[in-house]
Amino acid sequence: MPKLFEAYDIKIFGKNAVLERLKNGGGFNRIELLSGGAHDNRIDDILARAKRAGVPVRFCDKSALDRASDGASHQGCIGHCTDFAYSEIEDILQTAQDRNEPPFIVVLDGMEDPHNLGSILRSCECGGVHGVIIGKNRSVPVNDTVVKVAEGAAEYVKVARVTNINDAIRSLKKRNVWVYALDACGEDIYKTDLSGAVALVVGAEGKGVSKLTRELCDGILSLPMRGKINSLNAGVAAALGIYRRLECAYAHKV
Amino acid sequence: MPKLFEAYDIKIFGKNAVLERLKNGGGFNRIELLSGGAHDNRIDDILARAKRAGVPVRFCDKSALDRASDGASHQGCIGHCTDFAYSEIEDILQTAQDRNEPPFIVVLDGMEDPHNLGSILRSCECGGVHGVIIGKNRSVPVNDTVVKVAEGAAEYVKVARVTNINDAIRSLKKRNVWVYALDACGEDIYKTDLSGAVALVVGAEGKGVSKLTRELCDGILSLPMRGKINSLNAGVAAALGIYRRLECAYAHKV
Repeated sequence: MPKLFEAYDIKIFGKNAVLERLKNGGGFNRIELLSGGAHDNRIDDILARAKRAGVPVRFCDKSALDRASDGASHQGCIGHCTDFAYSEIEDILQTAQDRNEPPFIVVLDGMEDPHNLGSILRSCECGGVHGVIIGKNRSVPVNDTVVKVAEGAAEYVKVARVTNINDAIRSLKKRNVWVYALDACGEDIYKTDLSGAVALVVGAEGKGVSKLTRELCDGILSLPMRGKINSLNAGVAAALGIYRRLECAYAHKV
Repeated sequence: MPKLFEAYDIKIFGKNAVLERLKNGGGFNRIELLSGGAHDNRIDDILARAKRAGVPVRFCDKSALDRASDGASHQGCIGHCTDFAYSEIEDILQTAQDRNEPPFIVVLDGMEDPHNLGSILRSCECGGVHGVIIGKNRSVPVNDTVVKVAEGAAEYVKVARVTNINDAIRSLKKRNVWVYALDACGEDIYKTDLSGAVALVVGAEGKGVSKLTRELCDGILSLPMRGKINSLNAGVAAALGIYRRLECAYAHKV
């Protein structure tokens, strides 16, 4: 399957995130390590893998790393790479087929906060989601912050970046994927069977799923709310939806 | 039961009082200093500690400080802070009794990241948790960042701050609360009935629940992991545990 490469100057911060990308065969232009920093196993591993992959390693002092990270926590390790490799929707469906599982896809409708996107990629990776679909216009792309917050998960979860979320939903429906919006005033998610081919549409914090997208979906699912605030963080809500699906998939197998 | 939450804008007057609170790790929303006032060691100390703690310092003229202090002696220094009113474990158990529900309590073992604590308070509020127990030593207190991230939930969720987490767990067990640690290598949480009187112990990100605490618990519960990273954000893991309980409580009522 072809990959969609777009030019992004991405910095990956932290030993774990850099190591995960190296393990996965992801490329770097160069890696910067703290000169005279504590020498742990992960640094040894990074050095060995960078050498094998032909990635130049430069040792810098702390002030240079601080400047490059612009305040983000870098743990004495910054990897520079040029692009995030987006996938196509077909790649995501293929992943499901390769794993012999009904597709489970998360569609993000206008997620603007990179922390939420990173957190969702991490939860998707742990929860066995086959891929994430984001929009080109109203969503943050997979940038440095997203990669950092995802703690290595951005290397493994397929992300498709589409021009139009609603067209993507229509094409999923044509492929017999059942599309649910996770939003207020819907059916209780814990009373709905989420096994089978399912896409879960999650809206931006404070905004929810946009009206047109909501109307396109096959159903609306809601998380029960027992307090006075009645508003979960978008990343937390997405994780609850993902794990509800996982639970249903297990129940189906038993 | 006494009213547990108090006003949030508390002013502390005088260099010594402000300095003591800063030394003690107490938070401030902002500190106001007399513009052009005598510059002594304490002012230098306040500036240095405020900078380290990320507290904004504003220089004001005398009339503004006089107005803010409403006649109290301010010595050219006023600290504005958010004091959080902690509850006792008894208050939490009473809340459960008042709602006619078996107690559901979240115990945080060394949560150092204020964003995670704030996120967990928010999820607790939405998920109907009766209260949260945090340790005095190895945990971040409920500070401004926590209150901000909790998006209003800190107003409603009871938080008890105890000297010793393990003693708190022992006392819950004496009250017939079943205490589970949410950690790796335990029983699948989706195959465990979490109705009844339950406390869920959540460890810090990257560290998990400490050994002694783990051994004290009645059981270990784990979230299924389907990817390569196998590590969820602590706030997300807590939310998944909270909503698993909510689901079990519902199922029990049906």
